[in-house]
Amino acid sequence: MRSIVVLVGGVGGSRFTSGLVAELERRYPDVITRPSVTAVVNTGDDAWIAGLRLCPDLDSMMYTLAGVNDTTRGWGRAGETERVADELNAYGVGWPWFTLGDLDLGTLIARSALLRDGLTLTEATAQLSARWRGGAGLPVSLLPASDDPVETHVRVTLPGASSESLIHFEEWWVKYRAGLRASGFEQLGIESARPTPHVLNAIAGADAIILAPSNPVVSIGTILSIPGLREAVRAATAPVVGVSPIIAGAAVRGMADACLTAIGVETSALAVAAHYGGRVDGGLLDSWLVAEEDAAILGRIRALGIRALAVPLWMRDLDTSACLAGAALDAAAAESQSRMAKLGRRHGQ
Amino acid sequence: MRSIVVLVGGVGGSRFTSGLVAELERRYPDVITRPSVTAVVNTGDDAWIAGLRLCPDLDSMMYTLAGVNDTTRGWGRAGETERVADELNAYGVGWPWFTLGDLDLGTLIARSALLRDGLTLTEATAQLSARWRGGAGLPVSLLPASDDPVETHVRVTLPGASSESLIHFEEWWVKYRAGLRASGFEQLGIESARPTPHVLNAIAGADAIILAPSNPVVSIGTILSIPGLREAVRAATAPVVGVSPIIAGAAVRGMADACLTAIGVETSALAVAAHYGGRVDGGLLDSWLVAEEDAAILGRIRALGIRALAVPLWMRDLDTSACLAGAALDAAAAESQSRMAKLGRRHGQ
Repeated sequence: MRSIVVLVGGVGGSRFTSGLVAELERRYPDVITRPSVTAVVNTGDDAWIAGLRLCPDLDSMMYTLAGVNDTTRGWGRAGETERVADELNAYGVGWPWFTLGDLDLGTLIARSALLRDGLTLTEATAQLSARWRGGAGLPVSLLPASDDPVETHVRVTLPGASSESLIHFEEWWVKYRAGLRASGFEQLGIESARPTPHVLNAIAGADAIILAPSNPVVSIGTILSIPGLREAVRAATAPVVGVSPIIAGAAVRGMADACLTAIGVETSALAVAAHYGGRVDGGLLDSWLVAEEDAAILGRIRALGIRALAVPLWMRDLDTSACLAGAALDAAAAESQSRMAKLGRRHGQ
Repeated sequence: MRSIVVLVGGVGGSRFTSGLVAELERRYPDVITRPSVTAVVNTGDDAWIAGLRLCPDLDSMMYTLAGVNDTTRGWGRAGETERVADELNAYGVGWPWFTLGDLDLGTLIARSALLRDGLTLTEATAQLSARWRGGAGLPVSLLPASDDPVETHVRVTLPGASSESLIHFEEWWVKYRAGLRASGFEQLGIESARPTPHVLNAIAGADAIILAPSNPVVSIGTILSIPGLREAVRAATAPVVGVSPIIAGAAVRGMADACLTAIGVETSALAVAAHYGGRVDGGLLDSWLVAEEDAAILGRIRALGIRALAVPLWMRDLDTSACLAGAALDAAAAESQSRMAKLGRRHGQ
């Protein structure tokens, strides 16, 4: 295995990817033989705030992989302060309900400056990634799924309103804590968005493609909605392994249940597998990892033509995340071996 | 006297204007009768830095008049930190030689956001000014001289270069501490810039116009270079009183001497008076205040058709600044009375 592609959102994705990096370091102590990891990152949560480009998932990934994330809060930079945000609030600029830390603002200002200088988001992300770990950069290549702005909006009825309106995902997620019933999502800009060549090349050249246990609607779902991206994953030669973000009918983190409900999908590991679909049936998944708590549904997943495994799914720390990532790697390897075996039989070997 | 207009640069201008406010509060304890003060502020030092709009003179004025300026350093906000700037430096974005404090960045981000929302610089400045002093705003209306970007550049030979190039004023001033010999200044954008209607109205309606002891080349000079602004001051009915920024052949602060030398003007209170010119001779000045140390040149200034007074010119603290501002107010009143007396004689009274 030489190259692994992971489709990820923010917090869950960064935890899983950290585990993957740790597991690969354990399995391949020699860096020369270690497979490369490319993360295709959701950009649907991105927003302009006070004239600055916010990319929550890219930054969650970057901070976590750089080892500067705040593990107590679960998001943002460690040792964060909010002196600038207090000024912005005093001036009445920006979103008062959205916390912008000083260190985080450094990232936003730098990214915005690079974008205004004409860099693509992919190029800006590469420059932002280069400074970490003493200038060694990150152990993972971070690729925004698209360089074209795609911003997820949520159809809701605002308190006191008589009709529905469309609000930015961040407003729904952060201001309303996903507490307003969503009747649907719209990815503004999605029609004209395209996956970057970097993403398409990474997917085409991958030895394994993993769907991280991120939000299947607004994270992985948005990535896959970019015209051409789902097709690229389906066309890839690599096995596609998905990791369920649902354990025993509840979202592992975040508010994935509210998102699933909005698109009419039940909050269950089985329903999400069916939503992604089996590759044999025009869907994406070769394999699907569910929690041991959900072992009872393995048969029903297999009935969809998807290999299914029950594994410890809780990412409590780096060890449990590495263990889960290892299970995904093993599932991909098993799928590859099974294909080779079939190929061998077909050639009469 | 109902309304006073001051043309100002940054640090010297804000010190003088603070003194003016204090002196007016002393002379007019009742706020109802107190003259309003409008500051027409130089914008030639403005720059885009890391995608943010820096307006050093507007901000020096704002922080000083809001009482949140750093009196020890002499510029910026009190209690400043540089956490964001350290991040920008780590990302390789912005000017590493230019200090951007966290609190100051709050202003820059807010201003840039308002400008990108379509506000003029005048409107953005009004919004930024409103929060201070418990929401009472500033005691002075801050008006950028123009809403059109005008950026002063300096013609220099960079170290190791064989020919001249044009660098931004801030680079010359802050990075090179005005230590590279300037062979000239160019105000990029000046041809198409116009004074705002607010500035023209303030000047036309003023009872006194004061040229603060700011840099006569890159502060007051840039304001006056905006097409139509010098003409507006000349056309105003109010007396025009200038305060010398030079004492005994040396700049009171900043590096005005390097700027004067570049435009071929001697560093002396007399030469600067001649540079502004007497109103009777097509120039601007009715009166010119010089330092007591320069009392010997009063006769030569009067020979230019300019009323001249020697007063304590050092602004060491609020009291001495107020005293100097009081002298400027008195000079304006004396000029007005003298005009009325002439008018009376002309009408045979």
